Amino acid sequence: MAKETHKRDVYLEDIPLDEARAAFQAALAAAGWWQPLEAEEIPVAQANGRITATAIWAKLSSPHYHASAMDGYALRASDSEGATETQPLHFTLVEDWDSIPSEPRPIRLVNTGHPLPPWANAVVMIEHTQQVELANGRLGIEIRASLPPWNHVRPMGEDMVATELVLPANHKLRPVDLGALAGSGHATVSVYRQPRVAVIPTGSELVSAENVAESGIQPGQIIEYNSMVLAAQVAEWGGLPTRWPIVPDEFEAIQTAVRLAAQHHDLILLNAGSSAGSEDYTAHVVQSLGQLLVHGVAVRPGHPVILGMLEIGDWRLETNEQSPISNLQSLVPIIGVPGYPVSAALTGEIFVEPLLARWQGQRPYQPLTIQATLTRKVNSHTGDDDFVRVAAGEVNGRYVTTPISRGAGVITSLVRADGIVRIPRFSEGAEAGSDVTVHLYRDARDLARTILAIGSHDLTLDLIAQFLAERSGTRLASANVGSLGGLVALRRGECHLAGSHLLDPETGTYNQSYVHRYLPNEDVVLLTLVGREQGWLVPPGNPKNIQGWEAAAREDVQLVNRQRGAGTRVLLDYQLGKLGIQPEQVRGYGREEYTHLAVAAAVASGTADFGLGIRAAARALKLDFVPLAHEQYDLVMTHQTYESDRIRPLLDLLQNDEFRTAVAALPGYDVSVMGQVVEIIGR
Amino acid sequence: MAKETHKRDVYLEDIPLDEARAAFQAALAAAGWWQPLEAEEIPVAQANGRITATAIWAKLSSPHYHASAMDGYALRASDSEGATETQPLHFTLVEDWDSIPSEPRPIRLVNTGHPLPPWANAVVMIEHTQQVELANGRLGIEIRASLPPWNHVRPMGEDMVATELVLPANHKLRPVDLGALAGSGHATVSVYRQPRVAVIPTGSELVSAENVAESGIQPGQIIEYNSMVLAAQVAEWGGLPTRWPIVPDEFEAIQTAVRLAAQHHDLILLNAGSSAGSEDYTAHVVQSLGQLLVHGVAVRPGHPVILGMLEIGDWRLETNEQSPISNLQSLVPIIGVPGYPVSAALTGEIFVEPLLARWQGQRPYQPLTIQATLTRKVNSHTGDDDFVRVAAGEVNGRYVTTPISRGAGVITSLVRADGIVRIPRFSEGAEAGSDVTVHLYRDARDLARTILAIGSHDLTLDLIAQFLAERSGTRLASANVGSLGGLVALRRGECHLAGSHLLDPETGTYNQSYVHRYLPNEDVVLLTLVGREQGWLVPPGNPKNIQGWEAAAREDVQLVNRQRGAGTRVLLDYQLGKLGIQPEQVRGYGREEYTHLAVAAAVASGTADFGLGIRAAARALKLDFVPLAHEQYDLVMTHQTYESDRIRPLLDLLQNDEFRTAVAALPGYDVSVMGQVVEIIGR
Repeated sequence: MAKETHKRDVYLEDIPLDEARAAFQAALAAAGWWQPLEAEEIPVAQANGRITATAIWAKLSSPHYHASAMDGYALRASDSEGATETQPLHFTLVEDWDSIPSEPRPIRLVNTGHPLPPWANAVVMIEHTQQVELANGRLGIEIRASLPPWNHVRPMGEDMVATELVLPANHKLRPVDLGALAGSGHATVSVYRQPRVAVIPTGSELVSAENVAESGIQPGQIIEYNSMVLAAQVAEWGGLPTRWPIVPDEFEAIQTAVRLAAQHHDLILLNAGSSAGSEDYTAHVVQSLGQLLVHGVAVRPGHPVILGMLEIGDWRLETNEQSPISNLQSLVPIIGVPGYPVSAALTGEIFVEPLLARWQGQRPYQPLTIQATLTRKVNSHTGDDDFVRVAAGEVNGRYVTTPISRGAGVITSLVRADGIVRIPRFSEGAEAGSDVTVHLYRDARDLARTILAIGSHDLTLDLIAQFLAERSGTRLASANVGSLGGLVALRRGECHLAGSHLLDPETGTYNQSYVHRYLPNEDVVLLTLVGREQGWLVPPGNPKNIQGWEAAAREDVQLVNRQRGAGTRVLLDYQLGKLGIQPEQVRGYGREEYTHLAVAAAVASGTADFGLGIRAAARALKLDFVPLAHEQYDLVMTHQTYESDRIRPLLDLLQNDEFRTAVAALPGYDVSVMGQVVEIIGR
Repeated sequence: MAKETHKRDVYLEDIPLDEARAAFQAALAAAGWWQPLEAEEIPVAQANGRITATAIWAKLSSPHYHASAMDGYALRASDSEGATETQPLHFTLVEDWDSIPSEPRPIRLVNTGHPLPPWANAVVMIEHTQQVELANGRLGIEIRASLPPWNHVRPMGEDMVATELVLPANHKLRPVDLGALAGSGHATVSVYRQPRVAVIPTGSELVSAENVAESGIQPGQIIEYNSMVLAAQVAEWGGLPTRWPIVPDEFEAIQTAVRLAAQHHDLILLNAGSSAGSEDYTAHVVQSLGQLLVHGVAVRPGHPVILGMLEIGDWRLETNEQSPISNLQSLVPIIGVPGYPVSAALTGEIFVEPLLARWQGQRPYQPLTIQATLTRKVNSHTGDDDFVRVAAGEVNGRYVTTPISRGAGVITSLVRADGIVRIPRFSEGAEAGSDVTVHLYRDARDLARTILAIGSHDLTLDLIAQFLAERSGTRLASANVGSLGGLVALRRGECHLAGSHLLDPETGTYNQSYVHRYLPNEDVVLLTLVGREQGWLVPPGNPKNIQGWEAAAREDVQLVNRQRGAGTRVLLDYQLGKLGIQPEQVRGYGREEYTHLAVAAAVASGTADFGLGIRAAARALKLDFVPLAHEQYDLVMTHQTYESDRIRPLLDLLQNDEFRTAVAALPGYDVSVMGQVVEIIGR
């Protein structure tokens, strides 16, 4: 671990997003950087996806001569006057080209694309002719209709006339554009140079993914992947990224890397070290090499963003090397990107993309938006623009959206996000049920093919998602809020189905009485997904010898619990009640996790001695399992949903042998009940 | 020119599109080709845009230890019980890590991302503490609030728990996905191999764009660019294209190229030579090397498509070379792509894209669609599925769409197209005013930023399009139908503005009387764009000494005319009328072109001796110009449009010095009148 100090002479500001952008833009403009980069001339064949730097005008007409549009015969239209089905005319087949043939009705074979002989002005399709032998023994062609002038001829310039506009400047070239450019006489095209962007990861705690795959990982080590994400973003946005090796947390090392990068790049992304911690050198490095414009932007996640300009005038000359950057601005922009992965990726979207767009003559990317009903309240930090990752779906003809985990360290929240809801500063969040704008990460049509599952989590849902993605256009999106939360979401029309395993203590049945209580007026279908074993998850070897429900009350063991409303929590509470054990007697009862795997992780890491969960979760983290009960896990949905086309691929999947085999392979899972249906008629 | 023969033993069929696809698919399936290609394992950092070949499960949890979420101090939460603002507690700063410190209230500095010491279970933010000197002289930290367990701690597995699903198979990787993969312990990822596609241009008449740029071009030579378009399409669709050099029209040469390509590629696109002309060898080559499945698909444009399977089992072995194609199918698919550029590009979209998608586990691309009102009747060939390129725009809240030139040789019809309307076979076309589905080539939001101009063409419209594209998000789309056609389109609400230069013979004014006649009930604004000279376009040196309007009646000269409804045609008819010249007296009166440049091209190519047009068109094609009249070219629009936000960037442009200078540089253009406004109030 690197040496720790208490130096804290850098403080984070809270500059509003718009102000931070404006300050950066003003500095860029002053340095000549708020405009497209220089143009370069590249071969048309390599130009797909590049942006035209100038308007392109046709050098040649296309076609550049009168061309036959058909395989057929060229002739003078006036020679065909009077030809009919009953009174065909005979033409003499000639080979003459430049000279006017002496024969009375000359005709000449032409293929598609061939130029017309100068003496001809029409083409007859080969299919509409017949070969004949003429009286003079020569080969002739019979014509059975008179032709208008220019029949089946592509006149010169039909496609493009020289000097016409082919494409405007600032146009992103597509495959067909390459054809139009080449066809109008261009072998090369003037496009903006691609921005060169250095991505420099810093941090003594960082290790590369390759190293981890080879040598494993130690506590405190962090897999460095922000530079991968940032470099891939840069490439998607038209830039040429250079991924730097990991630079340790040493002022001089970072300064050297930045100086070197500035000599060959248009923009530097210095990752991490941008907050105000004891090892955060980014701000110092920027100050030492130029101007620190902004340190801390009021946006969440992404708070500790740094924006600055490096003054490279002097020390660029030191190297005696020709810089590839031809517009030798004496200042080079640098962005200090926060270390948390969600912050890093959003910093890319918010600050890097608009700059790369500008440098290539494009407007910033505008994601498609939809209006959707928010299913959960979002509390927001008052002074910040808050970028909330959300899942979105279309349920009963309206869009609904649910916030996903808000931790800046949770990259999966971006992976799973369907979009972003931006909560403006000073708004204090958004209420459940309110109408919000979702900036989509995916095609809106995907939402119409998405099954939204909100409720209890089960590993089988992951398998369903995987099988559906592989086999159909249908997508399963799930949010884990526990069984009761799922039934509530279903009642509110916020999802298509709710995973539920709620035991009714009085009847011993699963879910039915809860459906009666929570969805009294609906026709509901309970579709059994699996039966599964619940039990104690304990460390390997069960060192504290935890056995039976009564172990919950032992004074020498720490529990990790599930959240209120989870079926597993209901099961625990039911069993504790039967034994007369009060929650207060259970150490760790108040520590709540949201999934089986999170409970298993708590036990695996030693922060708890045991927790209630399914056998598969124990196996996943190599824990031991003390079986306690069997339970039933149902998918709950309205009858209307059950009958809908959207759900059909899922119903089919439950009958699929390969899927059932995959589920049966999960330890503690019973697929014999899979697909059983209970219909409950609403009042 | 290549030798011409009359061999015609190959005949085009008319297989319906769906049948052709089904036949191809069945042959592919039988050969093991109708499934994703094999997987390959590549570094995660290089995997952006690739498609996962398997579901990916987390190898490591993330974080893989309990991590501090803040810069601060780690402590035991229970030690902080009772701390308040008024009764702070003092902790002893320690360095202990593994061993439990002996001090009563130990506390240890941790930075964001650092692991928690095993004895600690909470973190206090550095901002909420103060350094103090303890009674024993040691450094202490003051805490002013009690902390819950796990405060500011990212528990192990917060992001991902080992064994959880990270990404399903058949998922196109995005930048954030790379982060999730690396963060869950993956250095490499299994993705589908990219399809290798050979693009082979054939034709003795073809020359490369590079050659043309160096050496110019001769009549009958055609610039080869279909292979550029096809290769760029293949790359966009995830494939690895190989562009072959141009192969001459010789059976053996083509056969050799195909055999060679088949040894290293998954698909062969053999361009041109697919129709039934005398030099079309593609079908023969496919027959000689394998199975010709389809020759001729009932789709327009794109008729002469060939689909086949090459039987490479024997002769692949001949080479003694290790083929890079590891799933050594003994058959390799080949598509004979028609030579016309529009046909070629559409063949890519219709036949190549779905196959490449299938090979990469994806569904075929589905373009976004809109419903739009068709402004012109589309006649369709009864037996064919007709792919009509259209311009589309949103006018007064409804989408309208207009067919663009239908020639299969007009690549600009694809460049300018906003989308495709598919007219199904046996439908006999679509009526003007009917509702059609447009498959969009662009973002639907672009249509809301498009100014649709229908009417007379002027070179200034090209300049407007260019300036708007460079300076604003607004796009100008124009269709050339002549001045009267534009006013009719405006009346029908099919465009935002109509370019018009219609002389009223009685008043000598432009456009006003026509607006009164064609748009009697509208409040209309006439916005003058330019004044311009009209005159005879004649070959350099004016060899036939064409002077004055009366030249139209000379017996020794051929005119090329403009179409009915064009302002230039109205002007000619007016002047002919004044001189008492009848249309029948004018040779070539019936030959109509739709733009000034097309008239100029007719004169330049020698197919006409003269035509009426503007001076700039003469200059563009290096013709001489005999001035005859001055006229005024207006943009006609409703008052409502004139006041709208959409038109604002255009109005601003007319005041822009750079734009006015660019227009003034066009020969024969007078910008002094630019921006003058006449308002006409409707009845």
